[in-house]
Amino acid sequence: MLNVHTRLQTWQKRIEGVLEAVLPPPSAHPARLHEALRYSVLNGGKRMRPLLTYATGEALGIAPDHLDIPAASIELVHVYSLVHDDLPAMDNDDLRRGKPTCHKAFDEPTAILVGDALQALAFQILASHPGMNASPAQRLRMIEQLAQAAGSRGMVGGQAIDLAAVGRELTEVELENMHIHKTGALIRASVLMAAYSVEAVDARCLQQLDHFAKCIGLAFQVQDDILDVESDTRTLGKTRGVDAAAGKPTYPSIIGLAASKAKLQDLYDEAMSALLSFDESANLLREIAEFTVKRIR
Amino acid sequence: MLNVHTRLQTWQKRIEGVLEAVLPPPSAHPARLHEALRYSVLNGGKRMRPLLTYATGEALGIAPDHLDIPAASIELVHVYSLVHDDLPAMDNDDLRRGKPTCHKAFDEPTAILVGDALQALAFQILASHPGMNASPAQRLRMIEQLAQAAGSRGMVGGQAIDLAAVGRELTEVELENMHIHKTGALIRASVLMAAYSVEAVDARCLQQLDHFAKCIGLAFQVQDDILDVESDTRTLGKTRGVDAAAGKPTYPSIIGLAASKAKLQDLYDEAMSALLSFDESANLLREIAEFTVKRIR
Repeated sequence: MLNVHTRLQTWQKRIEGVLEAVLPPPSAHPARLHEALRYSVLNGGKRMRPLLTYATGEALGIAPDHLDIPAASIELVHVYSLVHDDLPAMDNDDLRRGKPTCHKAFDEPTAILVGDALQALAFQILASHPGMNASPAQRLRMIEQLAQAAGSRGMVGGQAIDLAAVGRELTEVELENMHIHKTGALIRASVLMAAYSVEAVDARCLQQLDHFAKCIGLAFQVQDDILDVESDTRTLGKTRGVDAAAGKPTYPSIIGLAASKAKLQDLYDEAMSALLSFDESANLLREIAEFTVKRIR
Repeated sequence: MLNVHTRLQTWQKRIEGVLEAVLPPPSAHPARLHEALRYSVLNGGKRMRPLLTYATGEALGIAPDHLDIPAASIELVHVYSLVHDDLPAMDNDDLRRGKPTCHKAFDEPTAILVGDALQALAFQILASHPGMNASPAQRLRMIEQLAQAAGSRGMVGGQAIDLAAVGRELTEVELENMHIHKTGALIRASVLMAAYSVEAVDARCLQQLDHFAKCIGLAFQVQDDILDVESDTRTLGKTRGVDAAAGKPTYPSIIGLAASKAKLQDLYDEAMSALLSFDESANLLREIAEFTVKRIR
């Protein structure tokens, strides 16, 4: 277990280095925009998506240096979505990871532009970064996957569904639909893009990994909602019950706390079943699943 | 001349059809977001960038159907930049082409998401649209070009320079630097991406086209600034002197009106010179250059 924890930390450090390297230097013109880009990205996030990419790679026998650029591109898209999500017109958040959000540290127009530039950078590195060992066809497949996951039928669509849901009663199916778009699409891309690094991916193996990703993506959200009810504010790092108070639909508010916990367990079991045909090389993926359901913040 | 005008109109209709086809249907889930995407894109814009792509294709002997997707992807990026530029935190514009801007017709969060989704869609169609006749390597080269032109060292960088310039005295060099980023980068991409449709582009020919694009991109801005001073409000469709009044630096305010007109003529001459080695197949490019400097709004 310690070994797994250490290795996840090693990969977190690794992706920090990759992100640092793909971002234009702070001296690049215009300097203030580039300073804001680096401020927003290099903030010590959990890097869950890149970790999933690396762990999927390990399950498929792909070396991490082949996955640095795909992993970084997904994280850039994730960060851009947070920067835009924090804007006054959206969630209006002043703090992220205890630091002022981009529009607070800089200003609102800069935060809009930071998000826009990060999305462009994600596709730019996938298309052309020389450190990426992939054929043009593989690069294209990843770009397609990321664009789809990020777009109006993926993550951005999920944001729109979320906005429309505030203050409205959702069914469990509607709530699930929102999460599948808003966070699920990018989490699936984190796993699938690693698989696309293999020249010829076995279709059945791809489907199992995809199913695993769907389950833990949703499990992450269910656990998030449970923590919003159960965890104390100090552990959570944000105010307990804040989602429920904001009129945001949550699993406990729709199906109750006990059913939410049962659902979390079901999703965990299903995620583990999806990996049954994988040997111990998939152990890091299994650890990430376990971390997802057991995390306390 | 009538022939040229008719053909430009034919291409305008053509790109409307392509844009209409690549956008998800208004019934796609989430419907309101997709309605807003279509509202923002299908608004009868001038489509200057797609026209440049098609006209460059004609100069190089590339059929328009090979250029539909590159042309559409550039226009999607251009439209996203307008939607974000119109936001209250940016230029705060209520009207575009006489119709309410996206955040007025819908709301501010939707407008942020519309811009984000359009950018993703641009890269998605370049990566995977089956109607595009290009090798994987050609597609990648276009994606790289578009991402670079759109990103923090291109269009978005230009927006940041523009924001920082309001109310400040700029030199002519600084003003030019702003335009080269803000609009020049995407106009260059419109020409270069057409050229990348040719399997092996002649380097000298590419450089001439690039130089042509740089000149007319800047000429367009100089003429814009001149119109802001000279045209009456009714012809312009927006309030005369509005840029100068907003404290935005313009060519007439920095180098004077006469020098601005001389600069416009120089840029036009330089653009025409860049096409000297092209035969009559480049006549539409020449017409676009002439239109750029002679337009009255």
